[in-house]
Amino acid sequence: MSDRRIAVPAREGRGLRLAAGSTFRVVDPGGGQVGDLFAFCADDVAEYASAEHTRVHNDRLFPQPGQPFVTNRRRPILTLAADDSPGVHDMLCAACDPARYAGLGVEGWHASCQENLRAVMSELGHPDVEVPQPINLFMNIPVRPDGTIGWEPAPTRAGDSVTFRTELDCYVVLSACPQDLVPINRDAPGPLELHVAG
Amino acid sequence: MSDRRIAVPAREGRGLRLAAGSTFRVVDPGGGQVGDLFAFCADDVAEYASAEHTRVHNDRLFPQPGQPFVTNRRRPILTLAADDSPGVHDMLCAACDPARYAGLGVEGWHASCQENLRAVMSELGHPDVEVPQPINLFMNIPVRPDGTIGWEPAPTRAGDSVTFRTELDCYVVLSACPQDLVPINRDAPGPLELHVAG
Repeated sequence: MSDRRIAVPAREGRGLRLAAGSTFRVVDPGGGQVGDLFAFCADDVAEYASAEHTRVHNDRLFPQPGQPFVTNRRRPILTLAADDSPGVHDMLCAACDPARYAGLGVEGWHASCQENLRAVMSELGHPDVEVPQPINLFMNIPVRPDGTIGWEPAPTRAGDSVTFRTELDCYVVLSACPQDLVPINRDAPGPLELHVAG
Repeated sequence: MSDRRIAVPAREGRGLRLAAGSTFRVVDPGGGQVGDLFAFCADDVAEYASAEHTRVHNDRLFPQPGQPFVTNRRRPILTLAADDSPGVHDMLCAACDPARYAGLGVEGWHASCQENLRAVMSELGHPDVEVPQPINLFMNIPVRPDGTIGWEPAPTRAGDSVTFRTELDCYVVLSACPQDLVPINRDAPGPLELHVAG
């Protein structure tokens, strides 16, 4: 089987509908790039991959390979099938959005993962989705013993990837995070790729 | 000024609308009881206190006294004015719900913070709110260095409290968590109190 490859340009988002049982891979072709991943049930987009339900399901801040991401109705929607990266990911931080960039001092428009998500879901026929806490792939947010969190560069090497299996029919959206005011993308937001098996 | 005291019976929820600039206190009269707190903007309940935006705003897992809880539009809605408790709180775990209790082996109905929230917001005229990640007061969820989380008894002593100031006109809902299958409430869910100044 040959992969279908979807390029996700720097600072943009892409997505598609996948049947349950599909496999897809998120690839960081250049290294050092965060990807905000979202998943919504195709039957009802009010059900989506939920960070707070996933933490409770696995008793972990982030799933390990073999563990699921569950929805806000506690149903598995994705499984982390394989992690061919340093294994550093985040599920604590909201998607960047216009208010975040305004707070960081940006004047005028700045691309954001929230707007990327909404644009892709609109193209897929769902303009009014809730914006969930994303699955922030390759994002390096250390949690320190005193309860503070840090913002560190993504440790990914060129070609690193994470592989998922879909457990429900779902929409999957990936945003190549455009954050360039904190160093999570090594100050140079780059592209990502979505490889869909089959 | 005398407080208005609202009893929150064990396993139940209570709430009210408060103007910006109000002060309220969540009291654990018997000790060892978790309270799930939610706040929604009165003007538009699609805007609510958001865990993932609050973590980013403060660069912490949970605010310290003086720091705000912000909404999913990054506006301060509550400030943690004072903490007269051991200072152990959680903002990682979803509200308990029917699916959570089914997963823990419960057959038949079990009270839940999700249903308590929905019942109170219905009484306040908003039956269809999103269920946000709660502010889990007094809830003892240690985050271990390996990324796992624990479920430990609430360390509150009788009479401990947390005080909040409202920064926006908002609905505030408090659920006395009915969880009795993991030991967060010392296996005996109890009542809470809401003291509103004025």
